[in-house]
Amino acid sequence: MTVQIAGVASTEFGEHPDSSTRELFTDAALEALENASLSAGDVEELYAGNFIGDLTDDQAHVGAMLADYLGARQAASMRTESACASASSAARSGVQAIESGDVDVALVGGVEIMSASSLEVVTDALANAADNEYENEAGLTFPGIYALMAQAYMNEFDVTEDELAAVAVKNYENGVSNPLAQRQTETDVESVLDSPPVATPLNLQDCCPITDGASAAVLVSESFADDHGLETTVEFAGSGQSSDSLALQDRAELPRTRAAERAAEDAYERAGISPGDVDVVELHDCFTIAEILAIESLGFFERGEGARGAVEGETAVDGRIPINTSGGLLAKGHPVGATGVAQLVEITKQLEGRHPNQVDDPTIGLTHTVGGSGASCVVNVLRTGGA
Amino acid sequence: MTVQIAGVASTEFGEHPDSSTRELFTDAALEALENASLSAGDVEELYAGNFIGDLTDDQAHVGAMLADYLGARQAASMRTESACASASSAARSGVQAIESGDVDVALVGGVEIMSASSLEVVTDALANAADNEYENEAGLTFPGIYALMAQAYMNEFDVTEDELAAVAVKNYENGVSNPLAQRQTETDVESVLDSPPVATPLNLQDCCPITDGASAAVLVSESFADDHGLETTVEFAGSGQSSDSLALQDRAELPRTRAAERAAEDAYERAGISPGDVDVVELHDCFTIAEILAIESLGFFERGEGARGAVEGETAVDGRIPINTSGGLLAKGHPVGATGVAQLVEITKQLEGRHPNQVDDPTIGLTHTVGGSGASCVVNVLRTGGA
Repeated sequence: MTVQIAGVASTEFGEHPDSSTRELFTDAALEALENASLSAGDVEELYAGNFIGDLTDDQAHVGAMLADYLGARQAASMRTESACASASSAARSGVQAIESGDVDVALVGGVEIMSASSLEVVTDALANAADNEYENEAGLTFPGIYALMAQAYMNEFDVTEDELAAVAVKNYENGVSNPLAQRQTETDVESVLDSPPVATPLNLQDCCPITDGASAAVLVSESFADDHGLETTVEFAGSGQSSDSLALQDRAELPRTRAAERAAEDAYERAGISPGDVDVVELHDCFTIAEILAIESLGFFERGEGARGAVEGETAVDGRIPINTSGGLLAKGHPVGATGVAQLVEITKQLEGRHPNQVDDPTIGLTHTVGGSGASCVVNVLRTGGA
Repeated sequence: MTVQIAGVASTEFGEHPDSSTRELFTDAALEALENASLSAGDVEELYAGNFIGDLTDDQAHVGAMLADYLGARQAASMRTESACASASSAARSGVQAIESGDVDVALVGGVEIMSASSLEVVTDALANAADNEYENEAGLTFPGIYALMAQAYMNEFDVTEDELAAVAVKNYENGVSNPLAQRQTETDVESVLDSPPVATPLNLQDCCPITDGASAAVLVSESFADDHGLETTVEFAGSGQSSDSLALQDRAELPRTRAAERAAEDAYERAGISPGDVDVVELHDCFTIAEILAIESLGFFERGEGARGAVEGETAVDGRIPINTSGGLLAKGHPVGATGVAQLVEITKQLEGRHPNQVDDPTIGLTHTVGGSGASCVVNVLRTGGA
């Protein structure tokens, strides 16, 4: 029995100064439900990613808050948290809930309001994804952590800042055509290199922005879709999730994301596919270096070869393996708790043939979402199919 | 295919000034794994409840942190959060993960370190379970919220403070024999009434203490238990979870927990039982009034009759329906993120016939865990059985 995607929606990503967390999520959820021809009263399970609401809004217990405001008090509700991979964990748990036979309709998604807080508050809050005892106390923030990974990668594989910048150039270009993207302007290698330095070798345009946004997907069992005449066309093929050391210092190899390797291997095995079968990918490019590490962990490039992807056009919309046709976190934006399901929204649109940067007739799509510097990773594989 | 409980453990509840979050959880997890004759390398899925670590330790991403420190980096890890019901959500999700066929071994549990922070920090952090916009901003804290529910209940059903106090007297008495309990001293009605007022009508002994603690349970598929010769004797019979308005102001009836009613109904249906079949219960007595509301929502007493339970001995260890033989949250303590699985630990010991306050030959036990003032509730039903 497969799990079907009956409806998806993302809000525009960017600044939403007039929306609260509950309002923004409900915008996405109602659109996804409408897209599925279902209503809030049909939801049996609600899993929602949210990462920093405790610290920015003094608000936890977000699952119940969202179920309440949406009008789905009957649902089991829960917040899932694995840092920046929170919404992907929500999706994976929603799939399991349906596969277990417990429920037929799960609403999964996430939401984050980040722009309303000061930069200090947001930076501190995001740092909670790292190891407070061993990393934050030493003064590391996330740009610093990824800069260390980038330095190690560049040293080991003789890669330049220009090559990192090529990832941003590609993803910005993809963002231009995505009406939901936060950054809809092109850039070039020189502009990336000239943008203000954040943590050497990462400049401002190597880093994803601070974003408000929400995402939602309505998952249903195949039998529910059949019984209710839902015309679904996309289904889950397999998921994987794994962990790694929370602190960078405990990794044997700095420029390598082992959790992603394990999650991918698991997802491929469950889906019965290999990396070569994947047609389109949304992955976790919180920094340019992160995309390079990701395409290696996912098996699209050999270790040390990932920088070629953007430079040689292999990861372009019309390339061998199109990566982040949405603009990715770099251009589309990264409302932390919402990101994983926003990726699923983009892949669903690709598989349905209605993406603004449509690739040619895809049948298998993949999302890859990383928590922190890689202590969590979730890989979800979707395929065309449907009830 | 049923989900078996292969091993359980709780740390002592109380103050653990020398333990960090990761250390305390690992103490419980390793004991549970040893109890199951398994090792950290066997864990495929780790769901951990933690509620206020963001605010007390500047540490989120706790699922990955615990997997890492335990030596289970291979596992999918996630923090589950539904306020005080977080660990029960973890358990329910672990059951679904196994029932879905995705994994065979799930470690579920939770941890909270509360005593290291100031009373102000803990009170503020706990308030994140309420509706920040509509409750906290109005000055409500949790004792105040439950005091409002108690006042409404006492007015509607003509119940006295003495009758509330009887719940504390019973649970303190049960705590005396529980070596893991934070409060191991008896009390009496007069002492409860004479204890310092917290929020009228609730006095200090009507309120659960601030607690450090961790809990863990190893769940396995029936086939895994068979294949590995694990002699399990307790299994999951059914679970239910539901939601309600986050803010008290939106409830049609203040002294009524609708999420608990729906969760119980769902759990009973899945387990194929009725309330009369339940032999022993651990439930969410964060305040004395909460136990009274809970035993009504669970169907053990008619509405307005719950106060009779402790007064007339019906909920005593040797009563008609033994409630909180561990001492409950009032005496055993309430390390928020750990509580739900700690309840499962107690029920497992009862069903295995090795509880310090053993009831007579139980075959069905139940846990009931509430998030906030009742916006979340999880009911898990266990029964004797095993592979």
